[in-house]
Amino acid sequence: MKYRNVINKILIGVFVVSGVLVGCGKQEETAMSTVKEFETVHWKMVTTWPKNFPGMGTGANKLAELITEMSGGRIQVKVYGAKELVPPFEIFDAVSRGTAEMGHGASYYWKGKSEAAQFFAAVPFGLTAQEMNAWLYQGGGMALWQEVYAPFGLVPTAAGNTGVQMGGWFNKEINSLADLKGLKMRIPGLGGEVLSRLGGTPVSLPGGEIFTSLQSGAIDATEWVGPYNDLAFGLHKAAKFYYYPGWHEPGTTLESFVNKQAFEALPEDLQAIVLNASRVANQDMLADFTARNNQALETLVKVHSVQLRKFPDEVLKQLRSISDEVVAEVAAKDPLSQKVYQSFKKFRDQVVEWHGVSEQAYLNARTL
Amino acid sequence: MKYRNVINKILIGVFVVSGVLVGCGKQEETAMSTVKEFETVHWKMVTTWPKNFPGMGTGANKLAELITEMSGGRIQVKVYGAKELVPPFEIFDAVSRGTAEMGHGASYYWKGKSEAAQFFAAVPFGLTAQEMNAWLYQGGGMALWQEVYAPFGLVPTAAGNTGVQMGGWFNKEINSLADLKGLKMRIPGLGGEVLSRLGGTPVSLPGGEIFTSLQSGAIDATEWVGPYNDLAFGLHKAAKFYYYPGWHEPGTTLESFVNKQAFEALPEDLQAIVLNASRVANQDMLADFTARNNQALETLVKVHSVQLRKFPDEVLKQLRSISDEVVAEVAAKDPLSQKVYQSFKKFRDQVVEWHGVSEQAYLNARTL
Repeated sequence: MKYRNVINKILIGVFVVSGVLVGCGKQEETAMSTVKEFETVHWKMVTTWPKNFPGMGTGANKLAELITEMSGGRIQVKVYGAKELVPPFEIFDAVSRGTAEMGHGASYYWKGKSEAAQFFAAVPFGLTAQEMNAWLYQGGGMALWQEVYAPFGLVPTAAGNTGVQMGGWFNKEINSLADLKGLKMRIPGLGGEVLSRLGGTPVSLPGGEIFTSLQSGAIDATEWVGPYNDLAFGLHKAAKFYYYPGWHEPGTTLESFVNKQAFEALPEDLQAIVLNASRVANQDMLADFTARNNQALETLVKVHSVQLRKFPDEVLKQLRSISDEVVAEVAAKDPLSQKVYQSFKKFRDQVVEWHGVSEQAYLNARTL
Repeated sequence: MKYRNVINKILIGVFVVSGVLVGCGKQEETAMSTVKEFETVHWKMVTTWPKNFPGMGTGANKLAELITEMSGGRIQVKVYGAKELVPPFEIFDAVSRGTAEMGHGASYYWKGKSEAAQFFAAVPFGLTAQEMNAWLYQGGGMALWQEVYAPFGLVPTAAGNTGVQMGGWFNKEINSLADLKGLKMRIPGLGGEVLSRLGGTPVSLPGGEIFTSLQSGAIDATEWVGPYNDLAFGLHKAAKFYYYPGWHEPGTTLESFVNKQAFEALPEDLQAIVLNASRVANQDMLADFTARNNQALETLVKVHSVQLRKFPDEVLKQLRSISDEVVAEVAAKDPLSQKVYQSFKKFRDQVVEWHGVSEQAYLNARTL
């Protein structure tokens, strides 16, 4: 082994001194060939978020730090914001082909690769954060996610959650289904499809264009994330708006994925560290959103006098009914999507019953 | 360094080859004194749970496995069930004095050490699992917990959560506060104190004696955990009973604590692994309970025809009002309890507002 090759390497595993050199004037112990070596790796993490974006972007940073910290520096992860290395919606391909070792985004961005991917991020009237984690980690969901990403040479993990996202900001009160007709709203994905079937016009806009579009009246309504991010964007200042609770993203799971070859090149302890760091990041982002949303909602209501409203029951029932149709249609597109949907649906039906007498019953009892 | 001292040691940190021996017939590279060494440690984890007890006991096992796995075997953790090494309610002292390096229990068992400890486990009408994690990890709760345990030389971590526990099994329907008068119920802790103020008689019984006490009529009612554990104990078979949602333990946090000296003897990467393994175990136990409770509730209702009921609103309002009194009295006992209570209460008040338009509003919209 050459000196230069050894520098910057880190030893792991059992260090066995298996011989003693003699005849050198004094005894010297040496590291022999049973030593397992692992070269420090430098990983790139590409993300769909603007660098340091509150919640998601800072969550990606946290994941990188956790991996470096727990690995004792054996894995160094450098985080790239959207567009720094590749455009945001090309991170899936970039990690798949090995341009970067890790990605951080949300699986519903990859429905063009597989419709089934959407079930691992957010489904209208689907699972909350706690329920998503239960399905993924203890209900068979993670094995299905791995199956969906395997053809792309990617190992997926859940690496964050926003909790229930807000339904959004509306320039008029929504008192009936008629008020959704003709409504031009920034709402992407499956939620947008539901709005469309109710006569609204879903619009796709990047986050940075929402404020000006609201202010100019180019759109009548928008969803974004929740009080923490919405306050940071100043959406309450765009115009006179009503703020409504959500239904379309009830516990959005963020993801991290790792290039399979890079992952398998790691020894087992480092593989465990990468997977478990994602679990910590997943939990930590939800805690972050919950604590920050608490404070931001208070500011929005008390300082900025934001008007909170609730959708009428009839509107919610119709949104739910059409959501179920839209989701079932996604599931019908291919056998793998159908397989994921059946697992998801069975879990949802069971957890609606259980949480009906636990989480939901308790939250309602607390506010009687 | 002696041969025997080196065997069974593991090297961590950067391995620097800083010299080359010459004059020995061939060049040999040697590990020099800059190598940081760490001897494999064997830790004992004492627990308050029967060995392999579903949920809590298996969660403790999982935590031990995670630490060993992520540390590449540098920390070996052996789990002891209740009474195997020390009695269940002596684990706090045992880890404090170093008889064992880790413990796994629930902080409300240690109110004799500090009244404040109860806030880190479960408070009637307090925080759910998601809310507890947000308070602990992002709302200042963990720093307070560390402050409460510091005088005992212990480093606390949250290491599990049951989610909302069921209100329990009752031999008659509870239609009014009058039905609680004279009720003899197995319910420990603060919940028991609340029942007592409403004219009931709280009883403390270990888990193993609940079934026979119900069957013999020695008690009229009991709480235990939730469908998963209640089904395993066969409580539905004890007599004709009604099953009620809970209010007294809305997201019971289980804990792990580490002897401070043992913790500080670890290098930084292993300290990070111990703390983060607890976070994964915390998340995993909640996922486990959520998934298993789903299935067990279905079995209880569909197979065993268990009768689910809800407490009338007036009963819940009174339980809440008295719970708030009892909790405020705990907080008044000493300045540290008051400090913890003020932080807890501020967080609860905020999150009641936020979850009122997110988690709670969504769960209600989903079941309209």
